[in-house]
Amino acid sequence: MIGIGVIGAGRIGRIHAGNVAASGRARLVAVSDALESAAASLADELGTKATTRGAILADPTVGAVLICSPTDTHADFIEEAVQAGKAVFCEKPVDLSSERIRACLATVEKTGKALMIGFNRRFDPNFAEAKARIVAGEIGKVELVTILSRDPGPPPIEYVKRSGGLFRDMMIHDLDMARFLLGEDPVEVHAVASCLVDPAIGQAGDVDTAAVLLKTASGKIAQISNSRRATYGYDQRLEIHGAKGLVRAQNVPLTTVETANSHGFRSDPVLPFFLERYAAAYRAELSAFLDCIEKGVAPSPSGMDGLKAQILADAATESATSGRPVHPIY
Amino acid sequence: MIGIGVIGAGRIGRIHAGNVAASGRARLVAVSDALESAAASLADELGTKATTRGAILADPTVGAVLICSPTDTHADFIEEAVQAGKAVFCEKPVDLSSERIRACLATVEKTGKALMIGFNRRFDPNFAEAKARIVAGEIGKVELVTILSRDPGPPPIEYVKRSGGLFRDMMIHDLDMARFLLGEDPVEVHAVASCLVDPAIGQAGDVDTAAVLLKTASGKIAQISNSRRATYGYDQRLEIHGAKGLVRAQNVPLTTVETANSHGFRSDPVLPFFLERYAAAYRAELSAFLDCIEKGVAPSPSGMDGLKAQILADAATESATSGRPVHPIY
Amino acid sequence: MIGIGVIGAGRIGRIHAGNVAASGRARLVAVSDALESAAASLADELGTKATTRGAILADPTVGAVLICSPTDTHADFIEEAVQAGKAVFCEKPVDLSSERIRACLATVEKTGKALMIGFNRRFDPNFAEAKARIVAGEIGKVELVTILSRDPGPPPIEYVKRSGGLFRDMMIHDLDMARFLLGEDPVEVHAVASCLVDPAIGQAGDVDTAAVLLKTASGKIAQISNSRRATYGYDQRLEIHGAKGLVRAQNVPLTTVETANSHGFRSDPVLPFFLERYAAAYRAELSAFLDCIEKGVAPSPSGMDGLKAQILADAATESATSGRPVHPIY
Amino acid sequence: MIGIGVIGAGRIGRIHAGNVAASGRARLVAVSDALESAAASLADELGTKATTRGAILADPTVGAVLICSPTDTHADFIEEAVQAGKAVFCEKPVDLSSERIRACLATVEKTGKALMIGFNRRFDPNFAEAKARIVAGEIGKVELVTILSRDPGPPPIEYVKRSGGLFRDMMIHDLDMARFLLGEDPVEVHAVASCLVDPAIGQAGDVDTAAVLLKTASGKIAQISNSRRATYGYDQRLEIHGAKGLVRAQNVPLTTVETANSHGFRSDPVLPFFLERYAAAYRAELSAFLDCIEKGVAPSPSGMDGLKAQILADAATESATSGRPVHPIY
Repeated sequence: MIGIGVIGAGRIGRIHAGNVAASGRARLVAVSDALESAAASLADELGTKATTRGAILADPTVGAVLICSPTDTHADFIEEAVQAGKAVFCEKPVDLSSERIRACLATVEKTGKALMIGFNRRFDPNFAEAKARIVAGEIGKVELVTILSRDPGPPPIEYVKRSGGLFRDMMIHDLDMARFLLGEDPVEVHAVASCLVDPAIGQAGDVDTAAVLLKTASGKIAQISNSRRATYGYDQRLEIHGAKGLVRAQNVPLTTVETANSHGFRSDPVLPFFLERYAAAYRAELSAFLDCIEKGVAPSPSGMDGLKAQILADAATESATSGRPVHPIY
Repeated sequence: MIGIGVIGAGRIGRIHAGNVAASGRARLVAVSDALESAAASLADELGTKATTRGAILADPTVGAVLICSPTDTHADFIEEAVQAGKAVFCEKPVDLSSERIRACLATVEKTGKALMIGFNRRFDPNFAEAKARIVAGEIGKVELVTILSRDPGPPPIEYVKRSGGLFRDMMIHDLDMARFLLGEDPVEVHAVASCLVDPAIGQAGDVDTAAVLLKTASGKIAQISNSRRATYGYDQRLEIHGAKGLVRAQNVPLTTVETANSHGFRSDPVLPFFLERYAAAYRAELSAFLDCIEKGVAPSPSGMDGLKAQILADAATESATSGRPVHPIY
Repeated sequence: MIGIGVIGAGRIGRIHAGNVAASGRARLVAVSDALESAAASLADELGTKATTRGAILADPTVGAVLICSPTDTHADFIEEAVQAGKAVFCEKPVDLSSERIRACLATVEKTGKALMIGFNRRFDPNFAEAKARIVAGEIGKVELVTILSRDPGPPPIEYVKRSGGLFRDMMIHDLDMARFLLGEDPVEVHAVASCLVDPAIGQAGDVDTAAVLLKTASGKIAQISNSRRATYGYDQRLEIHGAKGLVRAQNVPLTTVETANSHGFRSDPVLPFFLERYAAAYRAELSAFLDCIEKGVAPSPSGMDGLKAQILADAATESATSGRPVHPIY
Repeated sequence: MIGIGVIGAGRIGRIHAGNVAASGRARLVAVSDALESAAASLADELGTKATTRGAILADPTVGAVLICSPTDTHADFIEEAVQAGKAVFCEKPVDLSSERIRACLATVEKTGKALMIGFNRRFDPNFAEAKARIVAGEIGKVELVTILSRDPGPPPIEYVKRSGGLFRDMMIHDLDMARFLLGEDPVEVHAVASCLVDPAIGQAGDVDTAAVLLKTASGKIAQISNSRRATYGYDQRLEIHGAKGLVRAQNVPLTTVETANSHGFRSDPVLPFFLERYAAAYRAELSAFLDCIEKGVAPSPSGMDGLKAQILADAATESATSGRPVHPIY
């Protein structure tokens, strides 16, 4: 069984570390965090050891690392890890600068080590099944993709300020999903955005409501909408139209219970946020990463997928600001 | 075009007369009612004439009559009409006494005239489609039928007193539907019933909540439940299980609109009562009756279907009263 | 009862004339058509008379006309009719040239006669209910509108050539709906479009798949997608997000029947095309027009609504062609 | 943390032992099985020890046992365990003889130890939520309960022969659920049953398709239907009608993905069988048992619930055989 080190013991690091521990396929060797107490607490909970990043990278029993530290450390840590001979799974985004990502990927390539990027939604059982049906030809050639993604509420303003903006922080997932579903890179990006949910977000220079229109070279179209507000849960849906029909993935409700009275029928809100909605996705994502290591499968989403999503997020940011479409260069 | 006379200008007579007038396939020659003003008002509305039942039966331009008068007149009027050479459509039930029905059907048979009974639900587009899929073999051999039927609210107590009781007045429709879906006659009837909705119904000697369990000779099973109360509209559903799968027909909502907020998703109540839910069924029923006349198709539901449903309603009434199963003899 | 003349006895003229005849609120005085036999056949069917447009306009018993003739006659016929003192209902669009529409509306204004434009979808019971819930404040302030509209299949190429293009022929309905739901005029229009369904449409200079992104001055956003293909019926949906929740209107299925087997659950395709889906909308639309005449209510959709939708359709056409956003001037 | 011993390492024992190990609330001290290798294999997998039942009962660190052995050992093992001072969770049924259950419960009562019975469905999040809404008064006083339960396919014939028959083996869950939802004991039981799925089941003296009608002293009604066949997954639904409305719990689909084409819309089969459908229920059930031990809450479902369900299953068996209703005495 491969030994795994987890770098970063925050919210997402805890999810991945827990999944490693319960996987039955890999051994959780150690966890590290800039905040020692966070690493210690997580290690204690999972029956593993807390140590430093350096020690993890130096440990020959560690075959792979999961990078779950803050965004501005991702590119450096990826480079250190591949140079230390580890396979790497890194949470999105690789970096907020696409130039930095390009340099990082070049370094990775030289080492020949595997790098997989954490676009977890590709592994959601519902979205993965939708993709599988497209691949199986059930709807014919893809023509139009619609992705809707709404957070239950806005993040803290401090988070917003460091986030790179809605397109790079939130919509980047949907931009990756659009590429995943279109099977082709967008060449034209139109974005509009507003601050309608919380004026403080606008004062911080960001937006909270946005929509994007994408077009590929062959003429396929994608629409994405985002909002930092959804009163009925974490809204995550997609619908794809092809020459032969449509496939769509709906939300997952809290329960299947309905009540009816003179006001009609009431069914449940959808799962509240990503921890609940994407619990299975995080497990499947880890499993896919372990497949890469064990079977030599090419990592997917790859570093290049991470770069292209970032380029699209930059393009959307620029379009929303300038009011003009942007033609991304990958 | 065949000439039609409508006998009875009450609520159901008005529906049928209006459908004849708008059918484009038959001519509404005249309407009659024991209450002259009711006939006059309906005739005026539809641009036809009001007359007496006798005049309708004597009119050689009338080829068929629709009997929509009170239940206790049905058997007599059917006999008069077939003896006058008319094809007859009669609202259910033929009579509250199965002996009287047998005698009436014997008279009809002697004349060779067509008699069709108004079990309108067989013509509901949803229920008819469910039946068509059974006939097409989509679910294999039928094993278990569940029928649910709930009125939005109890009828007036005066109506209850004359109705023959819930099994003969309300469940008779579901008993006919069970035979229609099972494709076989029940040989064992278990019924339980209560007065839970309105004590006045109990004081009038009737029940308002009931369920029946039916078994056929080959072992097929049907369940029926009825209530005189449904806060969310007129609840009319059925589900049939066969060897290869299930088919079911759901209710029809007022609109397809949904709203969502922190309480979840709210969709509309279902169509409020039979006038709305079965509007299309009444039109299709008339069309089927005209097919009988024009094409010589055997009427369905037939007088025998009317008799058998009545026998089952009697059996259910007896079972609910005695607490013992009843084995109906047709 | 007001007397109505119907000008144009083609597909849509037949619908409106039939609805007038069955309305019980207005008298169908006469129908006309450039093709005399079309008018004669419709008149015969509905028990009214066929005549010329001139005779209709000269008839003092005609209080209002419904203009259902080809698009290029609309503006002229509107002007003639209002100058003849008639209230006018005119099918969309008023004209393919927004300048011609402006001139026509100026003429109408001078006469003070009522002019209502046939954006029938505002009267669909589902869409009207969605709007009513917005107006009632159920979802708070509107933030994001998504409209999806897909025809079951492409129209004949000859129709496409004369149609003014997908944005003016098909999406104009959705652009009007966006204004209706946003409660505000878009000031920024981004459009992308492709020919993915039928190469002959591209050869005719048109597109068959398109999406538009709209933004209003206050920052509200709307997304529209259109396709000339939908294998599962006529797809007509909308979803509106506001500060307090969402409201959406789904399609109407053929029946409520479902079957289940090892492949899962199958429910029906949606109503096949506009005649079925919007049958109730056309009746409600006529009823609204009669309300204008009888009660002096201001017509809605108004001529100005017709103009603004046309301006948006022009803007979308220009944006899709130029690849740049357009800022419409109303 | 309380120490737990698991007696029986078959399919259901493995589920419960795994849940104890992962609970974070209890310590899995040991597992035993008549088949030593089964216990050894499970112990190895969960990092605990395999031992004998005697050793578990003698171990002072074991505070509670989970009895997951064959049905015919349940009553004996319960008695041994409570006499050894352990709290007991026992899989349903306590015994196939209601007399033996009564004797067993008397023994339990003398020891004062907690006994909880494994009617897992009460803990399904959907069914538990339905019950919670009834308790909260959302539908008013309960009037009519409908429970549907269909296995995906028949069990092995050897299992059927030892099972006590469909009513005691399968419907006992639904009979418990009926009591749970009615909040009252049935006093009248009508059952019908057939062998429609597999003739071998009939040859073994059992049935595979059955329906029951229950009535309580206050007039509440319950309907249950069972089949050993469902091509679209493990069908587990319930619907409760009350004075103010209905509450129902639907199945859980494999995914939320739908496809549409000219045949209509296809959604997924439901979860395949109890391991998937009731995974969360088994965890919640264990949690409730631990609550009993830790907080002294009275166990629910109790031994008396186990007895009453068995009495109802006996009554249904007798009714289906005799063709007469049975009035159970508890």
